[in-house]
Amino acid sequence: MSETAAVDPDRDEWDVIVLGGAAAGENAALYATQFSGLDAVLVEAGLLGGECSYWACMPSKGLLRPVEVAASARDLPGVSARMDVAAVLARRDTIVNHLDDASQIKWALGAGIDVVRGYGRLTGPRAVTVTRPDGSVRRLTAREAVVVDTGSAPAVPPVPGLAEALPWTSQDVTNLHEVPARVVILGGGVVACEAATWLRGLGVAELTLVYRGEGLLPGQEPFAGELVAERLRRDGVRLCPGRTIARVDRENPRDTGKGWTHGGEVTVRLDDGTVVAADEIVVAAGRVPNTGDLGLDSVGVPGGGFLEVDEFQAVRGVDGEWLYAIGDVCGRALLTHMGKYQARVAGEAIAARARGRKPEVSAEPGHRAVPQVTFTDPEVGSAGLTERRARAAGIEVETVEYDLAGLAGTYVLREDYRGRAKLVLDKESDTIVGATFVGAGIAELVHSATVAIVGRIPVAALWHAVPSYPTVSEAWLRLLETLNTARHQRNQGA
Amino acid sequence: MSETAAVDPDRDEWDVIVLGGAAAGENAALYATQFSGLDAVLVEAGLLGGECSYWACMPSKGLLRPVEVAASARDLPGVSARMDVAAVLARRDTIVNHLDDASQIKWALGAGIDVVRGYGRLTGPRAVTVTRPDGSVRRLTAREAVVVDTGSAPAVPPVPGLAEALPWTSQDVTNLHEVPARVVILGGGVVACEAATWLRGLGVAELTLVYRGEGLLPGQEPFAGELVAERLRRDGVRLCPGRTIARVDRENPRDTGKGWTHGGEVTVRLDDGTVVAADEIVVAAGRVPNTGDLGLDSVGVPGGGFLEVDEFQAVRGVDGEWLYAIGDVCGRALLTHMGKYQARVAGEAIAARARGRKPEVSAEPGHRAVPQVTFTDPEVGSAGLTERRARAAGIEVETVEYDLAGLAGTYVLREDYRGRAKLVLDKESDTIVGATFVGAGIAELVHSATVAIVGRIPVAALWHAVPSYPTVSEAWLRLLETLNTARHQRNQGA
Repeated sequence: MSETAAVDPDRDEWDVIVLGGAAAGENAALYATQFSGLDAVLVEAGLLGGECSYWACMPSKGLLRPVEVAASARDLPGVSARMDVAAVLARRDTIVNHLDDASQIKWALGAGIDVVRGYGRLTGPRAVTVTRPDGSVRRLTAREAVVVDTGSAPAVPPVPGLAEALPWTSQDVTNLHEVPARVVILGGGVVACEAATWLRGLGVAELTLVYRGEGLLPGQEPFAGELVAERLRRDGVRLCPGRTIARVDRENPRDTGKGWTHGGEVTVRLDDGTVVAADEIVVAAGRVPNTGDLGLDSVGVPGGGFLEVDEFQAVRGVDGEWLYAIGDVCGRALLTHMGKYQARVAGEAIAARARGRKPEVSAEPGHRAVPQVTFTDPEVGSAGLTERRARAAGIEVETVEYDLAGLAGTYVLREDYRGRAKLVLDKESDTIVGATFVGAGIAELVHSATVAIVGRIPVAALWHAVPSYPTVSEAWLRLLETLNTARHQRNQGA
Repeated sequence: MSETAAVDPDRDEWDVIVLGGAAAGENAALYATQFSGLDAVLVEAGLLGGECSYWACMPSKGLLRPVEVAASARDLPGVSARMDVAAVLARRDTIVNHLDDASQIKWALGAGIDVVRGYGRLTGPRAVTVTRPDGSVRRLTAREAVVVDTGSAPAVPPVPGLAEALPWTSQDVTNLHEVPARVVILGGGVVACEAATWLRGLGVAELTLVYRGEGLLPGQEPFAGELVAERLRRDGVRLCPGRTIARVDRENPRDTGKGWTHGGEVTVRLDDGTVVAADEIVVAAGRVPNTGDLGLDSVGVPGGGFLEVDEFQAVRGVDGEWLYAIGDVCGRALLTHMGKYQARVAGEAIAARARGRKPEVSAEPGHRAVPQVTFTDPEVGSAGLTERRARAAGIEVETVEYDLAGLAGTYVLREDYRGRAKLVLDKESDTIVGATFVGAGIAELVHSATVAIVGRIPVAALWHAVPSYPTVSEAWLRLLETLNTARHQRNQGA
């Protein structure tokens, strides 16, 4: 797809310029323009559709889904499953459109949104320069707003020898083309846990996770990481909690330019002296926002860190409310769906202000109930605050937990079902401020909690939301019953 | 388990007598007694735990789950599944506890609830006689209340030759021990569609559904039945809509006393002259309440039909509010979870009245959002009202639909995903009064709709309940976006 097919090459002014054409950027352009008469252009140096479409959510889910189905069969007498790794990888390639963004370009143009290929930088208020693939520079001006959606990149910690060993990042491990026999993963968060799940499922024989904290998935309730760790251990994965990597050595590291097969054997030395040999090392140790080379200084905003935004996603400290930040760069929640939500809020705010109106739809309510699903085995889903975060926020907290193995709906799902649910309540309002579900089949259950939190539905009303039998949703019934009993016992004791 | 192990054989008075020890009855006893100091007894002639545990939800889900996993694998490149029918049936036997209710008895006694084996009938206000298995009669008196939870039984329509052919009912088809080669199912509702799904999945070669209406699942939005029909047809199931059976003949019908293998070939003649030969015929043509032989006349209530109840599940027309009806017999919603909900309301009402208080928790809010999940392929889930029912209820209705194949979350789930979602809104309050989701992976999504309906959350607030990416829950986002666009276009047109 050539640039000129999309856009008049001499055009230099749009109402809205979006730096970064990932999912959130696309949504911001759409929401700013769809009912307003404004026009917009996406400036993207890589693939339109961004990290999520090609290097994160979509390929990882494409790899995880067959592994999940195979695991369901393994845990269910009467069905057995066989995996064809080559076919799984081929389908992943289809899901990422063979790293071709033609369909995304088509979508954008169909939605009346222009696309300029190149790397965009701010040079002043509403002024952007784009460095094109051929090195030439194009100057653009935004009549109304500039939206920054340049995302984040994997952090590579300063471990001696690590960068030189050409480790796999999330981009490589989602787009792997051969399954290595031995892999070390550095990290214990979502990317690390999901990658461990599909790597093991696809046949990695020796898999080691090295992470600094005591538990996996440190952003979640502690039992989430415990249940995932239990399963990984049972599947033969070696977990090294509380450890860091002291040094990495690799024979003959080479960059094939394709993002995979990075050289010979990797020797990983942990801080306790343990030595692990592997064929690849995966770095999943957090992400850094792509704000270091955006020309933010030219508008008085420090680059390199997250961009602080107000409730309409406008960047704080910039006069005239013309600069917005959405997605990972604003640091509010590094999740595609939250980026898209922020994009809707920013887009509507831009459209409103262009008509001289005040924006009405704030991004605050949605951030009270940030949902997240980690597609490990068991799945981990949550919305809102963990108990720890709720307490840190000064909320007077009441909690209730339930072992999901006690449900009819989980009993039929798998043998030896392992799972747990927890609600975090604000005592004052008797509403839910956080919910966590861990277990097979909980991914779609999370949204019920998100709705309950956003809707601030009191427990007394939630009591009447009857879950269907026999589903995992009956977790709600059991949690509310357990809460009721605990309250009664406290009242009796008092 | 002998009766005397559970209960003093000379005891003749309890605070609460529950006629029928199914899931709802157990819950009513539990809720009436748990915090109140009251005592209760369950009177049950069959297995404690009832239809749902042994003959309906649990065995059917036990059969459907392996079929679903196999179907998921079939529709997903990279995984293939093989089914072992004998192992599936063996697991089903485990799920129904080999038709032994010892664990249920243990649960009841552990919860402080007594059990009397036998068939209970009312003989006057708060007076019950129990005909024991040995034919002897025992007279019981309830100090506070009697709760009727005797459930329903399959209706066998007066088709010539049908009863004589000893057709399978839902009890037989959930507890089948051999998979027949050829089956005719009479009916097009939930039982018929689920049975068709597992029978085909377990290997029935020639499967025919005969149903009076034009569509399957007539209680749901029409597209639900259409999508299920499409899949059944694609799987080689013969559908005969708008047809009835004129006559049934069977060679050598015999009752083995075990509920399966009922004789020789069945010849089924439809009303249009079509003749279908089968090895078994399944009747799934609705249910009738078990109220014909309960002695209801003795307390001035007509038997045989559904028992009309008030908001606390007390039977209307009975003085003193001592008689309650829950579950299928009250006819409000023939679903286990709604029976259990009614049981909680009735139990709390009984406990409150015993202490001279007015009951506080009405069953009305929960009945505004009755959820139901049908475990067909695709799954059908709904909560609240269909469009037709909402209009019939006089609600000024707005609707929105979305093709679930358009979601990233369904794209990764299966190839050629087929599904659809619909919201029914009350224009006046701008809240949701009904929701339907059809597709793989929607079973746990229904509860989000139930919460939204019960919580009466306005659309403007639901907008902030962000669904996690990439899940099927993003249906919510797309539905709200589609609604938003439609409203904008209507405003422009106006």
